[in-house]
Amino acid sequence: MNESEFHQWIYARSEGDGPEGRVLVGPGDDMAIVAWPIGDVMPAVDQVLDGVHFDLAECGPKLAGRKAMARNLSDVAAMGALPMAAVVAVALPVGFAQADAELIYEGIRELADEFHCPVVGGDVAAWRHDAAKLAITVTILARQAGTTAGVTPVLRSTARAGNAICVTGELGGSWLTGRDLSFTPRVLEGILLNFRHKLLAMMDISDGLAMDLPRLCAASGGIGAELIADAIPVHPDALAGRDIDPLDAALFDGEDYELVFTVPRGRLDALLNDPQLPCKVSHIGWTTKEPGLRLRRGDDVTPIFPGGWDHATK
Amino acid sequence: MNESEFHQWIYARSEGDGPEGRVLVGPGDDMAIVAWPIGDVMPAVDQVLDGVHFDLAECGPKLAGRKAMARNLSDVAAMGALPMAAVVAVALPVGFAQADAELIYEGIRELADEFHCPVVGGDVAAWRHDAAKLAITVTILARQAGTTAGVTPVLRSTARAGNAICVTGELGGSWLTGRDLSFTPRVLEGILLNFRHKLLAMMDISDGLAMDLPRLCAASGGIGAELIADAIPVHPDALAGRDIDPLDAALFDGEDYELVFTVPRGRLDALLNDPQLPCKVSHIGWTTKEPGLRLRRGDDVTPIFPGGWDHATK
Repeated sequence: MNESEFHQWIYARSEGDGPEGRVLVGPGDDMAIVAWPIGDVMPAVDQVLDGVHFDLAECGPKLAGRKAMARNLSDVAAMGALPMAAVVAVALPVGFAQADAELIYEGIRELADEFHCPVVGGDVAAWRHDAAKLAITVTILARQAGTTAGVTPVLRSTARAGNAICVTGELGGSWLTGRDLSFTPRVLEGILLNFRHKLLAMMDISDGLAMDLPRLCAASGGIGAELIADAIPVHPDALAGRDIDPLDAALFDGEDYELVFTVPRGRLDALLNDPQLPCKVSHIGWTTKEPGLRLRRGDDVTPIFPGGWDHATK
Repeated sequence: MNESEFHQWIYARSEGDGPEGRVLVGPGDDMAIVAWPIGDVMPAVDQVLDGVHFDLAECGPKLAGRKAMARNLSDVAAMGALPMAAVVAVALPVGFAQADAELIYEGIRELADEFHCPVVGGDVAAWRHDAAKLAITVTILARQAGTTAGVTPVLRSTARAGNAICVTGELGGSWLTGRDLSFTPRVLEGILLNFRHKLLAMMDISDGLAMDLPRLCAASGGIGAELIADAIPVHPDALAGRDIDPLDAALFDGEDYELVFTVPRGRLDALLNDPQLPCKVSHIGWTTKEPGLRLRRGDDVTPIFPGGWDHATK
C-alpha cells in the first residue's frame, strides 16, 4: 500500500466541486477549501500513531499530543492561512492512565493556545485489545488570513516552470534529534510570507524535500525542479552522529516541517532582501519545464530519486 | 478511565468562548459551533475502532467505513443541522490489502453521497506493529439548515423541567442484529422535526437511552426525567434471542442512533398529530425538576441506573 497511490485512487473518485460547487479545493493539497455561505472553511486531518510518528515509551504522552497538534498547524502554515479551531480523537490502549491521557491533552492544548486555536470537540475511546497502541487524530479548521482579498490561501498546484524555489529554516536530522516533537509550526511565517510576497505555491516538508517537492511539481501540471546543492540549508544537527553526506540528511530525512514555496523569478530579490523576513529563507533552485528532480553541483547535474519517508510504506 | 469524566476534565480547561468569542458552543454537545466571519461552522469528530465499534472479521471493511460516516452524520442529525463536508483519517494494520482499503472508502463515500456531504481530505497511515487493528476517524462539518433564522441548531443544554420527551423510531437490539452497521442516520428527520416543531433540546442515542438521556438532563442544568414504561418503543428485533425484559434492551443496549428530544408540553399534541412527521415519533415521558432518571409503570415509579455503554470503560 502506497499512500500517494491510495490518495490518487481517492481523488479519481472525487465528485470534483461537489454539491452546489461547494468544494473549491478537494483532496490532495495541505488543506481542502469548502465554500461557506460567506467565508470559506479549510479543514485538514492528520493522525499520529505510536510506533510510526512517535515512540510513546521514549517521548511520553505530552509530546505525542503536542506533535499531533503541531502537524496540523503545519498544514495551516502551508496554506498561509489562519487556524480557527480544532477537534481531537484519541484511541487509548487498555490500561492507559488517566494522568497520561490528561498529558496528551495538555500537549495539544498548550500548542493550540499559542496559536489561539481553541479545541472545540473530541472523542475518546478505550481500545481493549492486548497490543493496542495510542492513536491521536487532530482535525483543524482554518480560514483565509486577514480580511483583504490579497491574502488568499497558497495551494500546491499553482507553481509554474521558471519559478524560484525557496525554503524556510534548515533541513535534516529532525527525527534523530527530537526536533520532530518540539518544532514550532511555521504558521506566522506562512501568513507573513504570503502577505508580504506573492507566493505562487507552497507546502510543508514532512516526508523530506526530495519526496515533497516532487509532489508540489506534480500538482503544478507535472513541472520539474533543479536544486542547487550549495544553496540547500543543512541543519547543524543534521548528521546526528551518522557518517553520511549532510546533503542526503537534508534531502531525505523528513519531519522538518519547514515550508517550501515558489515565487516568480522577478520577485526573488525583493523577497531575499526583505528586512522584515520572519525567519531564515533560502533560495534553493528553480522549477523547470522538464519533469523530475535534479541536483546541480557546479556544472554537474544529476537526478535525485525520491527517497523521503512514505508513511504508508515505511 | 471514564469517558464522561475525561470530557468534564477537558471542559473545565476550556477557555470558554475562545479568542474573539469564536467558540459559540464548545466541547460537550453533539457538535461544536464555531463563529465564522459570516455563517457558523459546526465540526464533530468520531472514531470507530476494530474490536470496539465493529468487528472487522465479521462485518468487512466496507461496513466499517460506512459506520464511521454514519456515526458522524448522526451527530449532525442530533443538531438538526445540514452536513457540508467531511475529512477522514485511516490507520491501516500492517499487510492490509489495497482492495480492502478501497472498500473502507467506498463505504464512507456511498453514505456521504446520499447526504451530499463530499469527502474533501484525508490521511492514511500504515501501522507497523504486529497486532495493529483498523481505526477510522471521520470529522464532519455542518451548518445551520435552511437560510431562515428559525432553523437554528438544537443543543443538548436547552431542555427545561416539564418538557415532553420524545424519541424517533424504535430501540433495542441494534448491535445484535447488525442495525448498528446498516442504520440510516436521521439527518433529514432531525432537520424536518427542527423546522416544523420548536425542539428545545436533542441528542442522538449511541450509548443507550438510559445513558444518553441523563447526559441531556445534566447538560440542561441538572434536571431529571420520568419515562413511561409502556410508551417506550421497543424494536421488534430487540431481544435477538435473549431471555431478558424487552424494556431493558430498549433502555440499555445502545447503538440505536435514534434521536431523543424535548418539546414544550403545549406543543406536544401538534407534534404527535403532524400528518407530515418524517418517521415514527413516540412521546416517552417528561423532564422533571427532580434530578435522576425514573421509570413509571402505572403508579409504580422506580429509579433507572445508567447502564448503557460507555465506550471508554467497556
